Amino acid sequence: MEKKINIGLLGIGRIGKLHARNLLCSVPNAKLYAVADPYMNDETREWVKAMGIENCYEDPEKIFKDDVIDAVFICSSTNTHAEFIKRAAKAGKHIFCEKPIDTDLGKIKEALEAVKEAGVKLQVGFVRRFDHNHKAVRDTVASGKLGNPNIVKVTSRDPDHQPMEYIKVSGGIFLDMTIHDFDMVRYLAGSEVTEVVAYGAALSGAGYDQYDDVDTAIIMMKFANGALGVIDNSRAAHYGYDQRTEVHCDKGCVQVSNDLNNQAMISTAEGVEIAKPTWFFLERYNDAFIAEAEAFAEAVLNDTDTPVTGTDGLAPVKIALAAAKSLKEGRIVKLDEID
Amino acid sequence: MEKKINIGLLGIGRIGKLHARNLLCSVPNAKLYAVADPYMNDETREWVKAMGIENCYEDPEKIFKDDVIDAVFICSSTNTHAEFIKRAAKAGKHIFCEKPIDTDLGKIKEALEAVKEAGVKLQVGFVRRFDHNHKAVRDTVASGKLGNPNIVKVTSRDPDHQPMEYIKVSGGIFLDMTIHDFDMVRYLAGSEVTEVVAYGAALSGAGYDQYDDVDTAIIMMKFANGALGVIDNSRAAHYGYDQRTEVHCDKGCVQVSNDLNNQAMISTAEGVEIAKPTWFFLERYNDAFIAEAEAFAEAVLNDTDTPVTGTDGLAPVKIALAAAKSLKEGRIVKLDEID
Amino acid sequence: MEKKINIGLLGIGRIGKLHARNLLCSVPNAKLYAVADPYMNDETREWVKAMGIENCYEDPEKIFKDDVIDAVFICSSTNTHAEFIKRAAKAGKHIFCEKPIDTDLGKIKEALEAVKEAGVKLQVGFVRRFDHNHKAVRDTVASGKLGNPNIVKVTSRDPDHQPMEYIKVSGGIFLDMTIHDFDMVRYLAGSEVTEVVAYGAALSGAGYDQYDDVDTAIIMMKFANGALGVIDNSRAAHYGYDQRTEVHCDKGCVQVSNDLNNQAMISTAEGVEIAKPTWFFLERYNDAFIAEAEAFAEAVLNDTDTPVTGTDGLAPVKIALAAAKSLKEGRIVKLDEID
Amino acid sequence: MEKKINIGLLGIGRIGKLHARNLLCSVPNAKLYAVADPYMNDETREWVKAMGIENCYEDPEKIFKDDVIDAVFICSSTNTHAEFIKRAAKAGKHIFCEKPIDTDLGKIKEALEAVKEAGVKLQVGFVRRFDHNHKAVRDTVASGKLGNPNIVKVTSRDPDHQPMEYIKVSGGIFLDMTIHDFDMVRYLAGSEVTEVVAYGAALSGAGYDQYDDVDTAIIMMKFANGALGVIDNSRAAHYGYDQRTEVHCDKGCVQVSNDLNNQAMISTAEGVEIAKPTWFFLERYNDAFIAEAEAFAEAVLNDTDTPVTGTDGLAPVKIALAAAKSLKEGRIVKLDEID
Repeated sequence: MEKKINIGLLGIGRIGKLHARNLLCSVPNAKLYAVADPYMNDETREWVKAMGIENCYEDPEKIFKDDVIDAVFICSSTNTHAEFIKRAAKAGKHIFCEKPIDTDLGKIKEALEAVKEAGVKLQVGFVRRFDHNHKAVRDTVASGKLGNPNIVKVTSRDPDHQPMEYIKVSGGIFLDMTIHDFDMVRYLAGSEVTEVVAYGAALSGAGYDQYDDVDTAIIMMKFANGALGVIDNSRAAHYGYDQRTEVHCDKGCVQVSNDLNNQAMISTAEGVEIAKPTWFFLERYNDAFIAEAEAFAEAVLNDTDTPVTGTDGLAPVKIALAAAKSLKEGRIVKLDEID
Repeated sequence: MEKKINIGLLGIGRIGKLHARNLLCSVPNAKLYAVADPYMNDETREWVKAMGIENCYEDPEKIFKDDVIDAVFICSSTNTHAEFIKRAAKAGKHIFCEKPIDTDLGKIKEALEAVKEAGVKLQVGFVRRFDHNHKAVRDTVASGKLGNPNIVKVTSRDPDHQPMEYIKVSGGIFLDMTIHDFDMVRYLAGSEVTEVVAYGAALSGAGYDQYDDVDTAIIMMKFANGALGVIDNSRAAHYGYDQRTEVHCDKGCVQVSNDLNNQAMISTAEGVEIAKPTWFFLERYNDAFIAEAEAFAEAVLNDTDTPVTGTDGLAPVKIALAAAKSLKEGRIVKLDEID
Repeated sequence: MEKKINIGLLGIGRIGKLHARNLLCSVPNAKLYAVADPYMNDETREWVKAMGIENCYEDPEKIFKDDVIDAVFICSSTNTHAEFIKRAAKAGKHIFCEKPIDTDLGKIKEALEAVKEAGVKLQVGFVRRFDHNHKAVRDTVASGKLGNPNIVKVTSRDPDHQPMEYIKVSGGIFLDMTIHDFDMVRYLAGSEVTEVVAYGAALSGAGYDQYDDVDTAIIMMKFANGALGVIDNSRAAHYGYDQRTEVHCDKGCVQVSNDLNNQAMISTAEGVEIAKPTWFFLERYNDAFIAEAEAFAEAVLNDTDTPVTGTDGLAPVKIALAAAKSLKEGRIVKLDEID
Repeated sequence: MEKKINIGLLGIGRIGKLHARNLLCSVPNAKLYAVADPYMNDETREWVKAMGIENCYEDPEKIFKDDVIDAVFICSSTNTHAEFIKRAAKAGKHIFCEKPIDTDLGKIKEALEAVKEAGVKLQVGFVRRFDHNHKAVRDTVASGKLGNPNIVKVTSRDPDHQPMEYIKVSGGIFLDMTIHDFDMVRYLAGSEVTEVVAYGAALSGAGYDQYDDVDTAIIMMKFANGALGVIDNSRAAHYGYDQRTEVHCDKGCVQVSNDLNNQAMISTAEGVEIAKPTWFFLERYNDAFIAEAEAFAEAVLNDTDTPVTGTDGLAPVKIALAAAKSLKEGRIVKLDEID
């Protein structure tokens, strides 16, 4: 039988349940041993039981203290990530942490320092790196067969608005939404972003301007390897989750279009209809969530580097802060200016 | 919590394991309560245990006799299907049976008679009906918005040859492989096949002619509703699993291309490359296997008709026998001639 | 400057005007020297003049007798083709003749005999061979890089019904419409058809059955090289001109989809819309008409074989007659039975 | 017969010949009456004769002075455009002028002033507006059915490097190449650009940096209507002419992919190959060149506005100058700063 790592999962909300289900059913090299959540309620407790998870706690310490547990999945709210990382590191547990580690650079660095001292592994949940499409783009670029990257492009549009109560506390589009794309461009380019310039606008009429936020943005960037990049974002594409990437290199281009709901084409005198893109991240990135958990377990079992490191957790936050500064000040911002 | 039916699974080979894993992980309205296999060995027993299945037997009777079990999944070899259906029906269990029920029309009819007498539900495992692509074609046709079907087309090519030992006992291409497509054309046309004419050839050099079989076939057919149909088959497409369907109706056409491994396009001076179709049925139809199990459980829970009935299990076998007769005798064969 | 052949064009109806315009504007190695049409009227005469064509006759003999003319384009009605071929051959003119040469095998053979005796070149107007899409399929097959052809498929659907007065005298779907597809399968397979079996139906309600004709057909065939083939036809696709071909070979498959009006994709919450196929043969095959004329002129100038010979003119008529016989008699018909 | 305008064409180089051939063969409402070129040589004179053009001059004045001529096509080198426009306007001729009018804003304005005073029509040769793909994007946006534009994207990559001698005197990428895209974004957005910020790099190793030029660029812009835009450019895509546009609006997105050489797909065990995009502007925009000439003639005949006005000729030059300034100074540049 396959070797498995024992996992304690912290925070059993929407994303926690998603990881729990995957760990139980689809990740062969991991066993979900326990879950803990200070806000555990009866409904959740029943869900945990019905899923066949053996141990269900309110107190996270029960997980940190249990020697049978090899690693933790931190799926609680963002403001608890840095603290949980430090505690898990101290307890000698390997760590999978949902993105972002924090929105404060100082707290991120403290957490990364604790990980380094403890010598445990850390993987940050930038799940899109494990998507079959984006990975195909990155693998093609990384293979070198197209030469060096020249232009890196990411289109990333959510299907529809989040509730305005969420937007109010989201930290702004760059830290909340574009952060995935900032990770993606680093992943695709294989190089660090050195400067950015951002345009943004509240065009939807949904009220983003009330919170000094935007629903539409384009961000241009330079990479250390000389390549140029651009991301375009919309909070509400309406036709589905629009997630396309493209890298133009010395010798050619690799690009991916969206996964569609199906491959049907209906042709009549009135026109030709094809299927819409998959609706949102659950539909589009479900297999990627499984793959990232499997990769984490594999890194632990084989004692190799995780595929998304602490550095990968820190860098996109810096870029997001730079983009926000650029938008606010109406100028190009060098990453050196941040922190 | 959701209501679940208790399932006993018979035959824990490749397809049995596939269903077992889906029932355990992905089918919310079913619980895999027990598995039974007369050829149970230690390795399989360990697999069953590791998957967390509570009851593991050699004797199928333990399943038929257990009152807690609502339904059986018959995943054993084809020659056992009819007998297991009769025993399950007698025991009052609802039945999901892998395709085909049998290759002998008399045995199929006996089994269906037993099901009818017992008043239990039967669903036959024509899984492709639950594929997102073919279902989109069928739903479009069935909606009537394109008018009546005129031409029904199915392309169905396996990625590579099965071992010749398998081919030797397979019953021939029409009963072994095209049977899925005979089900598909009935499903798409919404009408019964009334006559067929088949062309076939052994072109691959792999030796099908030794067993009086073919690796390449085209079969033309008429439907009771006046539509015409055609299926083309190859045992070895090499580029992957080629599974396309198309229906041309009074007012237009609906067609589906293949699912691809990813949506990447790589463009260079040498040419433009896209991804291959998914490799075989496990990759292409995994979600469909989940959907068919879920639909079966739902039919049992709601006491409604199953989506693939005993009639649907019988008809494709008759068409396959007619096609084989057509190929052998070099003439058009009416379905009336069979049985 | 390029060398040009002098052309006399016979029959200045719709297809004659199409060739005339191409010869004048787009075929660099040909000069349209004269046109002749016994039914020449004032309007046509003015059109000829406005196009800058120097010589305009009623009497075809003026073309046959003029030594400056190297070749004729026969664009008159089908029943005049064979006779004009014989007269042109006698006059020592090379011949481009619109398809079909005739619908009577005896007349075709006489015409081909005259061509052979005179030692002039003959090209028959199977224009689809010069289409960029079908040619890509054929060139891939002919290159041998995919091995031998196993399955040849042609989908050929007209956008909408012809007037019933036309259908009445058309000779039936196989001689009028499918004849292009019978040429296409020979071209793609690189082999002769040895037997056919045809299904047909009048499903549109437009009245084809009044004339013992059908609007929907599927025809299956065998080739001398062992490959199998299938054509499906509809008189009224409604969504445009559906012209797709596909050849599956030992090592893989080459297929072409339709040219579309444009590459636009419009995505909204309601769905995703793409452009329809080009409407009919003028839109789809205009470049092919130019290419076939250029290829004819080149064969004349270089004294090489024409790309579509007299044999290519005869064979599809035989297949069409066999298909009609098959449909009428409800059986497989061998080509040997024809003629 | 159709009414035609008489055209005198100035400058019979590559682009002049292209327009001449189209006017002769494919533009029904225009007659190419004369061509003039001070650098006329024997070869060109022969070409003109062979094409059947009646009048061939060295002196452009012969065209300006001939009362039978309604309009001129200015196809000479850019530095002569403004002067020829002024002379043609004075002579009362309508004017089609290849892009750009000039690279000097002062000279452009003088030319436009002369046009205005003379009351003649002027159309500038931004041919891509007449491409079936880009036009489909623009027409969808302009119809208003998707709401207001939010994001306008243009990808524009040439297939391969121009000779370095050409680059040296080209005026830089923004004035030479991106100028088409600056026109395109105005056309698609239906609004004026108000500010730009440009990134550029010489990444190909072909030596653009010697001339203070770049081969790779991304330019971000704002429009008066609130929309944001981005253009990405490469001088050498290698896989063909990459010309894609996309507009995301309030209710959805319209986008176009490239025209391909054909619709073939070749699938084998090694992979799946499709055709490359058409090679360059002659292949991609040939029909657009015809359509723009036809539209010009129509505007003259019907006394309506031309579809690409003097304002449309001026604006992209201003944007190009702003982009160049942005790249040089490393900052966002408002269009107000130019001129």
